[in-house]
Amino acid sequence: MTKNPRQRMIESAAVLIREKGVEGTSFSDVVDASGAPRGSIYHYFPRGKAQLVEEATRYGTDFVVAGLAASLEDANVAASVRKFGMFYAEILRDSDFTAGCPVLAAALEGERSPAARDAAGQGFRQWEEMLSEGLRREGLKTEDAAPLATLIVSSLEGAVALSRAQRTTRPLEAVIDQIETLIDAATGRAA
Amino acid sequence: MTKNPRQRMIESAAVLIREKGVEGTSFSDVVDASGAPRGSIYHYFPRGKAQLVEEATRYGTDFVVAGLAASLEDANVAASVRKFGMFYAEILRDSDFTAGCPVLAAALEGERSPAARDAAGQGFRQWEEMLSEGLRREGLKTEDAAPLATLIVSSLEGAVALSRAQRTTRPLEAVIDQIETLIDAATGRAA
Repeated sequence: MTKNPRQRMIESAAVLIREKGVEGTSFSDVVDASGAPRGSIYHYFPRGKAQLVEEATRYGTDFVVAGLAASLEDANVAASVRKFGMFYAEILRDSDFTAGCPVLAAALEGERSPAARDAAGQGFRQWEEMLSEGLRREGLKTEDAAPLATLIVSSLEGAVALSRAQRTTRPLEAVIDQIETLIDAATGRAA
Repeated sequence: MTKNPRQRMIESAAVLIREKGVEGTSFSDVVDASGAPRGSIYHYFPRGKAQLVEEATRYGTDFVVAGLAASLEDANVAASVRKFGMFYAEILRDSDFTAGCPVLAAALEGERSPAARDAAGQGFRQWEEMLSEGLRREGLKTEDAAPLATLIVSSLEGAVALSRAQRTTRPLEAVIDQIETLIDAATGRAA
């Protein structure tokens, strides 16, 4: 956690939302979790909860973008996906399968939190594009790389939800293995 | 909608939950949507909202099981997945991207609604097993069919969430195409 109280509130909101969803996370929970002074929330987020949820969603998407960018500098797409997936498997186990993805939670908000939903949509798109670019660097054509990247993001998000519901990392681990096989087959065909 | 008021409440709850999530759906919403007499809800669901949400989740999983079973009698797995995916694309468009999957919403409930979460987990498992069995009938070995079935369920659930967030069926359509290609490749290898 950083020392800036505004940033601390955003990070606390992201952590709460990934577990409790947007509806289930109150300002009061965020104040308690972040240690921010009660009453300071409208000072930092004049548009209220909608703004806090939107910024927490962007924090969640940026967190993945930063991790993925760093990983893709040193490793190929398959290894980067495995690294990210195993990191998430650890979050699932450490939280006793209560913590999921704050961006997925925001994606389900629809017209209740349109700014957060849009931030989730843009985040997913950014992840898809980063993976697609990585796959192109490994020799895939754009028309093969783009839908495979969409499959990767979709299946990882879905697998985290299946893992939470079934209280086991089996679905996530199966999906990571499948993605690795798919990428190997696709880049093998391209080579 | 059926005529039985209890069943009508379960179906209304499933429809509301797929749009508003579990936290966002109140008893009062369900009473309004189902036309049930106010005050009848505890008569039909003595364990309260937890019971209603659990039964709505089972209704959602059983709905998919019935559709998938019927489809798999006449068509192969790839065609059944396409049929189901296109049906969902229509739900997304018809609802202006507000309606998702009630089972996914329940999957994210954790300890707030453990019975609904467990029902979601069992439902996902049942879908995985039906698809895995279908893939085995098409010649795949269990060790290849099972993780591919998990990938299919995970990626469809994730793609519906991506489609809602991005307000386009592009992710869902890309995932349906990818799954079809994967199944063709896997059954082609097995043949």
